[in-house]
Parts: sequence; structure tokens; C-alpha cells
Amino acid sequence: MNGKYKALWLDEQDNLVVLDQRVLPFVESTVTITNTNECVEAIKNMTVRGAGVIGNTAAFGIFLAARECNGNLVQLENRAKLIRESRPTAVNLMWAVDRMMKVARKSNDMLNDLKLEAIEICDEDCQTSKNIADAGADIFEEIMKKQNITTINVLTHCNAGWLAIVDDGTALAPIYEAKRRGIDIHVWVDETRPRNQGANLTAWELGKADINHTVIADNTGGHLMQHGMVDVCITGADRVSRGGDAANKIGTYLKSLAAHDNNIPFYIALPSSTFDFEIVDGIKEIPIEIRGEDEVKFIRGLDKHGEYSELQIVPTASKALNYGFDVTPSRLITGLISERGVCKADQKEIETMFKDLL
Amino acid sequence: MNGKYKALWLDEQDNLVVLDQRVLPFVESTVTITNTNECVEAIKNMTVRGAGVIGNTAAFGIFLAARECNGNLVQLENRAKLIRESRPTAVNLMWAVDRMMKVARKSNDMLNDLKLEAIEICDEDCQTSKNIADAGADIFEEIMKKQNITTINVLTHCNAGWLAIVDDGTALAPIYEAKRRGIDIHVWVDETRPRNQGANLTAWELGKADINHTVIADNTGGHLMQHGMVDVCITGADRVSRGGDAANKIGTYLKSLAAHDNNIPFYIALPSSTFDFEIVDGIKEIPIEIRGEDEVKFIRGLDKHGEYSELQIVPTASKALNYGFDVTPSRLITGLISERGVCKADQKEIETMFKDLL
Repeated sequence: MNGKYKALWLDEQDNLVVLDQRVLPFVESTVTITNTNECVEAIKNMTVRGAGVIGNTAAFGIFLAARECNGNLVQLENRAKLIRESRPTAVNLMWAVDRMMKVARKSNDMLNDLKLEAIEICDEDCQTSKNIADAGADIFEEIMKKQNITTINVLTHCNAGWLAIVDDGTALAPIYEAKRRGIDIHVWVDETRPRNQGANLTAWELGKADINHTVIADNTGGHLMQHGMVDVCITGADRVSRGGDAANKIGTYLKSLAAHDNNIPFYIALPSSTFDFEIVDGIKEIPIEIRGEDEVKFIRGLDKHGEYSELQIVPTASKALNYGFDVTPSRLITGLISERGVCKADQKEIETMFKDLL
Repeated sequence: MNGKYKALWLDEQDNLVVLDQRVLPFVESTVTITNTNECVEAIKNMTVRGAGVIGNTAAFGIFLAARECNGNLVQLENRAKLIRESRPTAVNLMWAVDRMMKVARKSNDMLNDLKLEAIEICDEDCQTSKNIADAGADIFEEIMKKQNITTINVLTHCNAGWLAIVDDGTALAPIYEAKRRGIDIHVWVDETRPRNQGANLTAWELGKADINHTVIADNTGGHLMQHGMVDVCITGADRVSRGGDAANKIGTYLKSLAAHDNNIPFYIALPSSTFDFEIVDGIKEIPIEIRGEDEVKFIRGLDKHGEYSELQIVPTASKALNYGFDVTPSRLITGLISERGVCKADQKEIETMFKDLL
């Protein structure tokens, strides 16, 4: 492609333009990133979020950093370190920075090569998304056939759509594909506190695509599953261990427990760049980001004047603690859907399917 | 006592004054209830909430209804029906109305007898709360001894403190008692979307009592339990079946699954009036209230001007679904703590302990 995707793109001056995901769905605006600091800040403050798009932003960020330091490799290494450390859990970030820096270190035409490599990473993510869409929609059709149902009810947590992974997402890609195939699909959208990526981003994406969906409090999924109102769960991931444990948005683990308790299949959709093959036990080893308590104590939305505004929702005197992710153990995952197809969340199967990446 | 409790009381004109729980913790105000309609409205719109306090309000409501219709029993029966149907899940409501109406039907001094009976119900709840406090705090001490820990971390969902059950609550009563006993206790307070009774009410109660606590998004409990940061879970209940299944605030089931998955004891605290002995299978038989979608789509809190205000947090075009409760199956409950002590969530044990009530 040409460096233009739905969630981010290069403008004519080769600056990176990203949709500002902090103010969706009520305000559709963009932020332009021109240098290292703006890239780090956009990742940290979640102007961009979602494992894939963080990786894409970081990749373009290395290109911008190289431009900023006129291709001085020593300075670029320092800037790359800042970008690499901007968030701790999603491994695509580290993966993208490492891949870009490999190119930088051996390039004779650094700026051009880095730009092409960042575009290549995004293009690969687009292809990944297409493959996941197909494999996931096939799974939906199998479930519908097996259960003899004409509508499929899918539950998802957080946002793993095109705002998270160019250019159709991971967990939402099979949902978009199902819609294209004419499947009657309904999506339960977990609100996803504290930052409400479900209510704000997934609901907005699905609404734009005219896909039938209902927003629920994160507390609700268990009850729905107990009462046969969910046929399959699918989420994205921020890091998956070699053993098949999946770090994803906080609360995913609770939904996987409910799915398991009610014999409902639970899938994780991911590009292979989300695997961390250095780690086997994800629960013990994947670092979990702790974000500021104000994300729990305050909430943003649209006030009665139509202004984007903020409210305090926890007493001033009370503390809050804000883990960004949790880890779903492999035993609770029915399958991992990647660009290479579906495999069990099992070390042996993962090592077989991805042996060239180990 | 004399009809004066922390969450509600009779004023000098024998009207019922209740704390307005919709605007806590940011505004401390009261609502005065003088007749049937005001009673029904206060229960429906959650000016009062919490199984016990709903029952208490209904009991005083019958007294006010009798006053309103000058003791005409036919008219009172109609008004009692309205109060009885004001909310569907918490069984204490039906229990309190039925008990009051039994008195009304055989009384020769209806107003006086109904007032005394409502006070009697509240006084019994106070005693229940004290008994639960003692039994629950004993459990905490046992857990600390067994695990050789000097601080106990308790996770609770929603609010089952003195705002829910006069005069110290159910689930929070052992926490208050632990504080009195000098136990080093820390409470994880589930925010409890969509109405945030945890963040708004439990955090406020615990803050007032100077009890160490931290508010977390409802999504967070699973991660905490996976990492040894929770020693015991305790919640209230709105209806418990003869088989030991417990309806409580939506999301309780998810926490019970996480507790079970991590070998953490999970207790339900309740007055015996919360039992519904007519029902064995709580998952199939307990009616679950569906509330308005605006409780999910809008949220209330304090704006930057210090005004109590509301924000929209879900796209206008998206639907929302708002179940008020879910049912935790007995197999996931370690024990039921009532005014009679602790029993397993097991039909046989329940029938033995409460045989006089069957």
C-alpha cells in the first residue's frame, strides 16, 4: 500500500497522522506526530492504542526519529529505546522497534528504507487481518452449523478492530467478514472499564459498519453466558506466551472463566508478532502495566451541552488501582487465530506452527 | 430501638426519611417519604437500594400506606401490591410486605401495630448485622491464622454495608467488626458498574469508618486473585435459593469464578429473610431485573465545577442491555453467613439450619 490506513497514515510531508482514540466516539479528530517525543507521548497517553496500532505507530516513530537525528545511528538507538519503553505489556511495540532498528543498522539509505519497512509492517498487518477474518468467520459458520442456529451471538472485550490493528482488526475482523458473508451476527460489546474502549471504540466501529451490537457493563457477560445468550467469545491480545497464555485488556480472564464454566468457545485473535516466544508461563512472566489511578477515579464523555467533559466518580479520599491487563491461562482458551490459521493454545502446537519464528 | 437508623429513620411526624443513595458520595441529602407512591418511586429509582433497606423502606411504606387510606384494609391490599412489585429480584421486599400485611390483617390498632412491626423488622436486621459481623470476623481471623498473614485483603462487590442493611450491613459488617478488633484489614472495592455502588457507596462508607480500601474496576478482581492479592471475597445477596444459589449484583458470578479458580474462599452474607425457600435452582428460577439502558449509556459524578452532573459514555446509535443481578451457583460459594451462623451453600445444610422457616 502507500502508508495510508484507516487508523493512521503518512501525510504529504511524511508526518504520521493518527486518529485521536481518546476522544472517540464523540469527537473525530486527528493528531499529527512529527518526532520521537510526540510518538512516545501518543503511545503513553493512548492517543493510539491497540497492540497492532501501537506497533505501527512505533515503526513510523523510528522513521520520524531517524529523520529527526539526520540518520545518526547512535542518536537513533537512544530514541528507539524511548519508543520501545513507552508501554510495557504489548509486545508488538518491542517487536516493531527491533525490526525497524535491524533495518536502520544495516541501511545505506536509512530514511527511505525505514519508511518502506514501516509501510511493510502495516501492509503485513493488513494481510494478517484478512487471514484472521477468514479463519474466524469459518469458525462462526461451524458453530452455527453445529448448534443449528441462524443468528450468532459473539461477545468481545475491549477493542481489537481497525482502531487496534490495521486495517480490519483482529477480534473484530471475523465479525466484519461475517457481515460480508451475509451471516446474521450480533455482538455483545463489553464496556471495558476503566477506559471504555468497548463502549467508545468497538461500539463506534460496529455502528459505522452497521453491525448489530449491544453494549453491556463488564459485569454482565457471565449472566449472558449462563443463559445461552452468547455462542462464542473472541478478543485480541497484547502478548501471548509460547505456552499459550494470553495477556489482554484487564477483565478478559474473567470472561474466559465464564465461557469455560458454560462450555462456550473462547478464541484469541492475534498477529504472530504478538507472540513472545521467550516466555512460557504468561501469568508469572508477562509484565502487567499499572496505569494512573485517575483513569478509575474520573471518566470522560459527552455532557448535556454536547461538550467532551470529565466527571469524578470515586470519592476524593479513596485510592484506586489500575492494572491495564490480565493474563488468560492457555487452559481457558479454545484456540488462537492468527494469520497462519487456528491452533490450540498449547506449547507444542504453537512451536510447530511458528517454528521459523522461534 | 425507636425507628432511627443510619440509612433511614422516622421523623417527628412519622414520615420516613431516607438517605438519597443516588447522589452519594458527592452530595449527602435526604428524601422524605410520606405515602405509597413516594415509597414505590424511591425503591424503583434507587433512592434506596440494598436488599435489607429496600425491605425496611417497604415495611415503613406499608405503615405510611395504611395511614394514607385511614386503615381501610381493601385499599391497603392494593397499595401493598404496588410496593411489593416495585422491584423484582430482592426477596426481602416481598418478605417485608408479606410480614407487614399479616399484621395489618389481624390488627385492631393498625397504625400503631404497623409502625411497631416495621421498627421490629429494622431492629431484627440490626441484630442480624451484629451476628454476621461476629461470625464473619471470626472467619477472617481463621484465614489469617491458617495463612499466617498479618494483613487480610478482602474483596467485595457492590454495597452491602449500612446503606444496604441496617445498621452495619451484611458483607461489610465483618469488615467493621475486624476494624473494631484491631485487625489490619484492606478492602478491594469493586466499582460495580453500571450504577457504581462500590465506588460511590462502599468506598464512601469505608472512608467514613477510616478503613483502608482501594477502588478497582470490576475487571480487575481476577488479576488480583491470580496474583495472591485477595485472601477472601465477601458479598451480600438479594435472594438465595433453598439450594444455596445466590442472586446478587450483576458481576458477582464472575468474581466467584475467579475465587474458585484461585482457591480463595467466597462468602455470601445475608439475613435469613433473603432466603427464598420456594426456589431450589436459583439460576433457572430467580427473576432477574432488567433496568433501563440509560444506566449503562450515561454516568453520574462530580464535574469540574463541583456540580453533580451526567455524561453520555456510549454512542447514541448503540443499544445497551442492563441486567441488575446475576446468580452465583452454590458450588462456587464457600459459605453463607447469616444471623444464625455459617452454613454451607448446600440444600441439606440450609434446610437443617432454617427448618423452622421452611
